Amino acid sequence: MGSIFGKYFRISTWGESHGGGIGVVIDGCPPQVPITIEEIQAELDRRKPGQSDISTPRKEADQARFVSGVFEGKTIGTPIAICVDNKDARPSAYDEMKVKFRPSHADFTYQTKYGHRNHEGGGRSSARETIGRVAAGAIAKKILKAVSGIEIRAFVTRIHNIEAPFFEGVPTLHQVEANSVRCPDPETATKMIARIKDYRSKGDSVGGLIQCKVKGVPVGLGDPVFDRLEANLAKAMLSLPATKGFEIGSGFEGTKLCGSEHNDTFDNINGEVKTRSNRSGGVQGGISNGEEIYFNVAFKPTATILQKQKTVDLEGNDTQLIGRGRHDPCVLPRAVPIVEAMTALVLLDHWMADQSQCKSVDPAIFS
Amino acid sequence: MGSIFGKYFRISTWGESHGGGIGVVIDGCPPQVPITIEEIQAELDRRKPGQSDISTPRKEADQARFVSGVFEGKTIGTPIAICVDNKDARPSAYDEMKVKFRPSHADFTYQTKYGHRNHEGGGRSSARETIGRVAAGAIAKKILKAVSGIEIRAFVTRIHNIEAPFFEGVPTLHQVEANSVRCPDPETATKMIARIKDYRSKGDSVGGLIQCKVKGVPVGLGDPVFDRLEANLAKAMLSLPATKGFEIGSGFEGTKLCGSEHNDTFDNINGEVKTRSNRSGGVQGGISNGEEIYFNVAFKPTATILQKQKTVDLEGNDTQLIGRGRHDPCVLPRAVPIVEAMTALVLLDHWMADQSQCKSVDPAIFS
Amino acid sequence: MGSIFGKYFRISTWGESHGGGIGVVIDGCPPQVPITIEEIQAELDRRKPGQSDISTPRKEADQARFVSGVFEGKTIGTPIAICVDNKDARPSAYDEMKVKFRPSHADFTYQTKYGHRNHEGGGRSSARETIGRVAAGAIAKKILKAVSGIEIRAFVTRIHNIEAPFFEGVPTLHQVEANSVRCPDPETATKMIARIKDYRSKGDSVGGLIQCKVKGVPVGLGDPVFDRLEANLAKAMLSLPATKGFEIGSGFEGTKLCGSEHNDTFDNINGEVKTRSNRSGGVQGGISNGEEIYFNVAFKPTATILQKQKTVDLEGNDTQLIGRGRHDPCVLPRAVPIVEAMTALVLLDHWMADQSQCKSVDPAIFS
Amino acid sequence: MGSIFGKYFRISTWGESHGGGIGVVIDGCPPQVPITIEEIQAELDRRKPGQSDISTPRKEADQARFVSGVFEGKTIGTPIAICVDNKDARPSAYDEMKVKFRPSHADFTYQTKYGHRNHEGGGRSSARETIGRVAAGAIAKKILKAVSGIEIRAFVTRIHNIEAPFFEGVPTLHQVEANSVRCPDPETATKMIARIKDYRSKGDSVGGLIQCKVKGVPVGLGDPVFDRLEANLAKAMLSLPATKGFEIGSGFEGTKLCGSEHNDTFDNINGEVKTRSNRSGGVQGGISNGEEIYFNVAFKPTATILQKQKTVDLEGNDTQLIGRGRHDPCVLPRAVPIVEAMTALVLLDHWMADQSQCKSVDPAIFS
Repeated sequence: MGSIFGKYFRISTWGESHGGGIGVVIDGCPPQVPITIEEIQAELDRRKPGQSDISTPRKEADQARFVSGVFEGKTIGTPIAICVDNKDARPSAYDEMKVKFRPSHADFTYQTKYGHRNHEGGGRSSARETIGRVAAGAIAKKILKAVSGIEIRAFVTRIHNIEAPFFEGVPTLHQVEANSVRCPDPETATKMIARIKDYRSKGDSVGGLIQCKVKGVPVGLGDPVFDRLEANLAKAMLSLPATKGFEIGSGFEGTKLCGSEHNDTFDNINGEVKTRSNRSGGVQGGISNGEEIYFNVAFKPTATILQKQKTVDLEGNDTQLIGRGRHDPCVLPRAVPIVEAMTALVLLDHWMADQSQCKSVDPAIFS
Repeated sequence: MGSIFGKYFRISTWGESHGGGIGVVIDGCPPQVPITIEEIQAELDRRKPGQSDISTPRKEADQARFVSGVFEGKTIGTPIAICVDNKDARPSAYDEMKVKFRPSHADFTYQTKYGHRNHEGGGRSSARETIGRVAAGAIAKKILKAVSGIEIRAFVTRIHNIEAPFFEGVPTLHQVEANSVRCPDPETATKMIARIKDYRSKGDSVGGLIQCKVKGVPVGLGDPVFDRLEANLAKAMLSLPATKGFEIGSGFEGTKLCGSEHNDTFDNINGEVKTRSNRSGGVQGGISNGEEIYFNVAFKPTATILQKQKTVDLEGNDTQLIGRGRHDPCVLPRAVPIVEAMTALVLLDHWMADQSQCKSVDPAIFS
Repeated sequence: MGSIFGKYFRISTWGESHGGGIGVVIDGCPPQVPITIEEIQAELDRRKPGQSDISTPRKEADQARFVSGVFEGKTIGTPIAICVDNKDARPSAYDEMKVKFRPSHADFTYQTKYGHRNHEGGGRSSARETIGRVAAGAIAKKILKAVSGIEIRAFVTRIHNIEAPFFEGVPTLHQVEANSVRCPDPETATKMIARIKDYRSKGDSVGGLIQCKVKGVPVGLGDPVFDRLEANLAKAMLSLPATKGFEIGSGFEGTKLCGSEHNDTFDNINGEVKTRSNRSGGVQGGISNGEEIYFNVAFKPTATILQKQKTVDLEGNDTQLIGRGRHDPCVLPRAVPIVEAMTALVLLDHWMADQSQCKSVDPAIFS
Repeated sequence: MGSIFGKYFRISTWGESHGGGIGVVIDGCPPQVPITIEEIQAELDRRKPGQSDISTPRKEADQARFVSGVFEGKTIGTPIAICVDNKDARPSAYDEMKVKFRPSHADFTYQTKYGHRNHEGGGRSSARETIGRVAAGAIAKKILKAVSGIEIRAFVTRIHNIEAPFFEGVPTLHQVEANSVRCPDPETATKMIARIKDYRSKGDSVGGLIQCKVKGVPVGLGDPVFDRLEANLAKAMLSLPATKGFEIGSGFEGTKLCGSEHNDTFDNINGEVKTRSNRSGGVQGGISNGEEIYFNVAFKPTATILQKQKTVDLEGNDTQLIGRGRHDPCVLPRAVPIVEAMTALVLLDHWMADQSQCKSVDPAIFS
């Protein structure tokens, strides 16, 4: 249990918010994949703190380096180790948290489960842990794009109660990156940014919704029963800090339809089997059906707020706490590349599983 | 990838809708747990077909038997094998499905992925597969109850657009089993049953929501990062046929609150650290915090409907199909024990993980 | 830990010597592999009891049946379940073992570890458990043969102190099956059979050596570090009842050579890179090098002997025990197909791993 | 497949001989274990190059540092990352190996499997990789000692054909470390050292045998069937570079005994069930029986020798190669702490498995 994800493309992340650094070891990456540190860095830069006026002011360049597994610009099939140093750690800001539990944080559960914790910046529960995921995801994305033309695009669709109009098709990276909140609808983005600033000025925080769309997925990714594609996507998303929900295709709203309204009928479109509608969200029987995959992830408002809150201390005494440290008033903008990374890790794992089982034996050899 | 679930209490399910039978092998079950086949059967009876006038008329006693791993009424620590024979299989009802893909079913994806499939009753994609999960879950439930007083109760909270009022606390098994739709609010249940019958009479189907509540969970189940308790619950739920969404605690609606509204402040209540509210849903930082765990699962309307639908055949030609075979017009009532079983499997796995890591070493021995 | 083997072609065995039956569930088998129950049975018949006058007189047809995963004569990509009933169980022969520990058996360790055990015939520690391995191995063998022309041949090379001369190349199945002890040298076989009968007549037992040779293995199976091919072969062999040692290539004797004697120099033989000698045993750096793989497995003399032995009972009192039940005076002849099966499972798992990682991405797509 | 070992105490190693560094991530370590970098370093110092006049002259301090998972001197239950920098890398010494395959090395198999490799110092196939194992093993050893008084001691028993007399009981660390070859018999050690120097002076190398003895192991570690204790030990040992064989207890020689000679009869010794002899090597039915565990590991002579050898180049042309770089003329002395580390990792993993399954449920709670 814990810090290893994937069965074929296995990533093992390590590191804490204010320890020496953060990193990831990738075991099982195919060899001969050309990859530069700049490609990794481009994704990390989308995630790094201090990138805009609606993110935390903590200054971390989050500069990655390969320590093994890449030689002469290409992967060599053995473990890839990527490290990022923590540069702007200010553990003293967390002295109070050593003895007081922040509401809706992991302080109390970690302390009780382990009996000992790194209280500085939340230690392992810090979202800095996701650096390793994003770095690994960058490689996964590149492979998926090359082998199958798969494109993964996440974007913010709701902040607090400000909802963007439905986006037809898959937005471009440019459209998503055009504003600091990463909502491809410019007008809504402006309102969202204002809302985040408004709540931040009150020492408060907001949550919202991220949608992720994937195109180019071939028919066949995912497995029956326990490793359904949507099951692994759901696990991946709920493994992200601050997430409270996942829905694929028609999701929660679709359960209000009856079967004759909900079913996606098949059609022969130019010689290809396609569905007319896509309430399935690109997955049927746990396996991708070649349609666009889309799902939503719910993120709660940031738990750390700069207001006085009631809590208890290590001895169980009632006390009060005012949030300190540097935090995002809304996690969604920086969570966009993380959602993409986790999606890539799930898809690549299934793609490799498929290679091992379904693509490995040509039935013709038996005849 | 596939048919094995869990890392400590590992279940491996096998079987198809119309093959010889269905079963499960459990590896890692603690020894000396007293268990009778009647205890397994009681859970299977809640799941079996033909149990009420709103479920499929297929007649299966789903009689389970132990084939290994239980000796003189107690588990012996080695693999437990449980089998159920398929008695009322009518594969001929599926002759048409051999060449035509049922809309929103797994026919097309299985055929494309594997190039060969058991089309009878959906083969492995049939919900009959869940028999093995329910059987294993019965043992998991018993252990959880004994070691920690954990009680898991799922129930139907919405069918189509008929929603039950919020149920305070955890309903009793008796309250849930009091009606065939498994909604603990009798008035709503009556309406739900009528709605299901109404749609069935039209050859149509409906979906809805199941809520699951768990009490008695100690602080500490779940792991940071990838094996957060909610991540594994999400995976477990999305691995069930017909599910489209999962939300824990405040879920999707909670993302419309701001942080100061959403946070669960800590309180010392009679010497115990508790939270005043429970928008976290009993989990903080991926680890149970001792509060009630609750989550919702969205089930789509049954894909098989008895109406003529547009589809394509194996050669990709446009054609039509009228659903046959015997089916549930609504899967939720019978899914209630399955949701409980999967919840039990996730919780027991985390509990055993905790024993292996956190409870195994007494810090005092080092001093 | 326990009863699941393999990461890609995963087998989960279940069953006890005198319980309802024995079986295996295979998860991850490629689809569209044509397989008949007769092909499985042919391997099981080589392993079954009562097949000759030097094996146990227990009469078990060990008739296998597919319960799922094979449809219209071909695998369908989902779990294959194979069952064998126990027919000639005589649990009463084990009444004494309920309270007395057989020397060098698993009785004492199982009882102490689990606090409860199926004492009938050794329960799970019985070699009957290997039925599931042999059944799964039959499928693995067939796939390996088809995809790569891999042939696996195990045979007895020593019984007690009777050693067969070195066999050049790989013996044919016919040569191995030509006599009941499965030694391809007819003269030695005759002496071995006599030796086994001699010890059996004294109520005693003997052990010996099995060699396994594999030809047709392509360069590239196996992984660096923990999943070296020889590491997984060693685990597979030491997981068999009664084994005490494993050596590959030059093995223990080779450690008496110096480097200049031991190294296998490379040679270009008709355009192919080959080694002149093969002290490596077909594996270098944990990865197959295209040469013949060969290794030896040491089997101890059967622990159950029909002589009075000193032991203790459940309460720890000193007592005596005379072996009963029906047993092999030497396990090696029947272990030959089991060694082959485990070898096949290891090789197929590595072959599928290789497909997932090394064969899945064509470097050309990146340019 | 690859670079992750263990199911409960999972280690993931990374790094190459001449890359930026070497390290390990440990996932699943119990919390609150006091551990200092000095304790890790003490084990690494036993393994490091340049420690004596019979090891490689490469100068590496192999200075370890914790990068995460240890806080205020104690483990915190989350991943422990340990890094060691490569300081004395001289990759240019390997220029020739870029295009020529060293005999009995991993060059050819890596190149063929991956199509691309780090040829500097063997890259991932270098024994430098074992640094991560030794670091993780140091923590495992400490836990085993504390929870159960388990002591693991490996030592050299044969170099080339110089064999030490049988050592009664378990030698002390002091006895093993008293000489540079790590043989607890001083007289034999002197001869062994002379032999190694003799072969080194000829540009040649030698192999031999390491024995490992473990005392204090409680009854019950190990699992039936695939995860027998000896199976996992065998895998652990054969995963070490240069190993060719493993035998436990009576091993290969014991197969020449008959059952009545080989069986270990049980005895009540001062109220404890013990065996009079220990040909089982401390393991029965795959599970530790409370006796001393002992096994032998065969190491081949170092493949790199400083003599001209025949080989082929990347294009398959016949050529010659003279070994360069800095190498051990005999790997055994430095392999001693590595054998101990792997043994500790296997035992701790089984110990944690036992906690999760067998020690977790008190049968009394069901009554």
